[in-house]
Amino acid sequence: MGRKHSNPLAPDRRRFIAGMAALPFVQTAFSQQPQPSADPLPSWTVGALKQTIVDFVQRTTNPRSSDFVAPAERIATFDNDGTLWVEKPLPSEVYFMLAKVKDLAARDPALAQRQPYKAALEGDSAYFHEAGPKAILELFVRTHSGMSQEDFRAEVQRFLATARHPKLDRPFTALVYQPMIELLGWLRASGYETWICSGGDTDFMRAFARKVYGVAPERVIGSELKREVRREKGRLLVWRLPGIEAVNDKEGKPIGIDARIGRRPVLVGGNVMSGGDIAMMEYSKGRDGPSLQLLINHDDEEREFAYAEKDGASLDAARTHGFKVVSMRNDWQRVFGETGR
Amino acid sequence: MGRKHSNPLAPDRRRFIAGMAALPFVQTAFSQQPQPSADPLPSWTVGALKQTIVDFVQRTTNPRSSDFVAPAERIATFDNDGTLWVEKPLPSEVYFMLAKVKDLAARDPALAQRQPYKAALEGDSAYFHEAGPKAILELFVRTHSGMSQEDFRAEVQRFLATARHPKLDRPFTALVYQPMIELLGWLRASGYETWICSGGDTDFMRAFARKVYGVAPERVIGSELKREVRREKGRLLVWRLPGIEAVNDKEGKPIGIDARIGRRPVLVGGNVMSGGDIAMMEYSKGRDGPSLQLLINHDDEEREFAYAEKDGASLDAARTHGFKVVSMRNDWQRVFGETGR
Repeated sequence: MGRKHSNPLAPDRRRFIAGMAALPFVQTAFSQQPQPSADPLPSWTVGALKQTIVDFVQRTTNPRSSDFVAPAERIATFDNDGTLWVEKPLPSEVYFMLAKVKDLAARDPALAQRQPYKAALEGDSAYFHEAGPKAILELFVRTHSGMSQEDFRAEVQRFLATARHPKLDRPFTALVYQPMIELLGWLRASGYETWICSGGDTDFMRAFARKVYGVAPERVIGSELKREVRREKGRLLVWRLPGIEAVNDKEGKPIGIDARIGRRPVLVGGNVMSGGDIAMMEYSKGRDGPSLQLLINHDDEEREFAYAEKDGASLDAARTHGFKVVSMRNDWQRVFGETGR
Repeated sequence: MGRKHSNPLAPDRRRFIAGMAALPFVQTAFSQQPQPSADPLPSWTVGALKQTIVDFVQRTTNPRSSDFVAPAERIATFDNDGTLWVEKPLPSEVYFMLAKVKDLAARDPALAQRQPYKAALEGDSAYFHEAGPKAILELFVRTHSGMSQEDFRAEVQRFLATARHPKLDRPFTALVYQPMIELLGWLRASGYETWICSGGDTDFMRAFARKVYGVAPERVIGSELKREVRREKGRLLVWRLPGIEAVNDKEGKPIGIDARIGRRPVLVGGNVMSGGDIAMMEYSKGRDGPSLQLLINHDDEEREFAYAEKDGASLDAARTHGFKVVSMRNDWQRVFGETGR
């Protein structure tokens, strides 16, 4: 292309070249040339963990490395709640459920007298502790079903446009972790496909994944309701039914990844909270060839929230299998983007 | 880039530019320049149907057209059996099932005495006509389950490497329709994502989709067995269970597309045989904005096989909804690639 030494580049030419870098085959060509000196992960603290990530991405994309991974195999999957955005005090989707119960009760006052809706409206967390996951599941199914896919996604978008986090008082979509946004972008620029594989409803996450994470709807793997095809005014619709089709958590994650992607991820991001990402990380570890698992530890009470698992299963698994633990407090220069907090 | 008039291009430069055309954003930039005169669909007969396809792709990728479709929405889905490759006298996957029953019976002779395995081994088609789809389903489940995903895909690849079509005496993977291969390639070069959405087992199709069609494993939507996670020698595996999870046919197709892609296809290819693609085509037709549905009619006894639906449902639906009917006899200059037949 005769432009190796043609700096400074005109802005539109720079944009064009930056765009090309997203292409695996171009990346391959570029990786043999001197790397630009700009840090692709400026919000990560300089240190061993950051170096592990940088080395891994460089080795797996360098055709002369024995750890080279062909572009077609460069799959990276990330949990969402607690890995890409805040999940405390409750995951954002739970606030969506509570807002939706309010709407439903306004249209059908009898609902407010029935459990678990009554407890949801009154913020009666003792009820939910006692009733267990079945009560939450009933809320989930009721608030997520009974409409077309198109209507559901529009509903989620309306919620996210106005709702604010109860403690941090910002829109939920502003509470994404800046270091992870940088990692997603750098992986894509290095020829990796970035996927979300999380416990939330697939279509809830699809409503914002492209805008917030640069992840297209077809690359979002989540929990699923049953569906059916309906015709309304001669138009065929996919309708959300009140029944669970798949729970994308724990061992459901490798199954979801196999069903949706058809190969093992090379890089996985997850977090300490409920052991939900261990199976996805082990599945990645079991691939033939290099792999990297990043387990985010929420140890930053000052800038976010500090919380741990009761049984310590995720950190135990990290020691056993060699997953890398990311300390939010030590490994992240900042947590959120806009405020620099 | 200063290369508009710099022909003749060096070969490596031509390759680079051809590769770039696969990128939606580059395609968008290029589409405002004069189009190359080479016919992107040389195996399609010049005429109204070909012109419809060419016009549609050009309109939907031209930013100055009112029918412009943003690159992120350019989804094309294709049935496989009878749309991208031969499905007569039986779909290739049925020959895989029969070969597998032979293997299973060699290891377990008692199987050869039990139905439906006995009938399969003896080629007793009368039995299957009488026993109905349940018998076929039992063969399907037995031959497709009881192994890891990795082992299953390797098994399919071994089968396809040696098996030959019983009438046309060529490997199954050579019996793909050349006009459709050209269409898939041109769509991708025009910024469309090409997907397979077919009734066969997802992982059966994944075993050859990239090599034969240029379609990556994550873009194959098919029927699915139930799965579970197992550990073998400390390695986590996804295991194929003997139970049906989803049948990707008829109304199962819009549901599969919604689950996997999350939006309606702009362009759909299917074929006349069992009405299996009508719902997928109606679903596409129901999108906001332009769409095109191509229904392949097998009317070419000389070069392939001539067959029709008993109830004519697909052709009726084409008339009702405006799907375009592709006559293999009239609209395809040739059917297969290598022989030019």
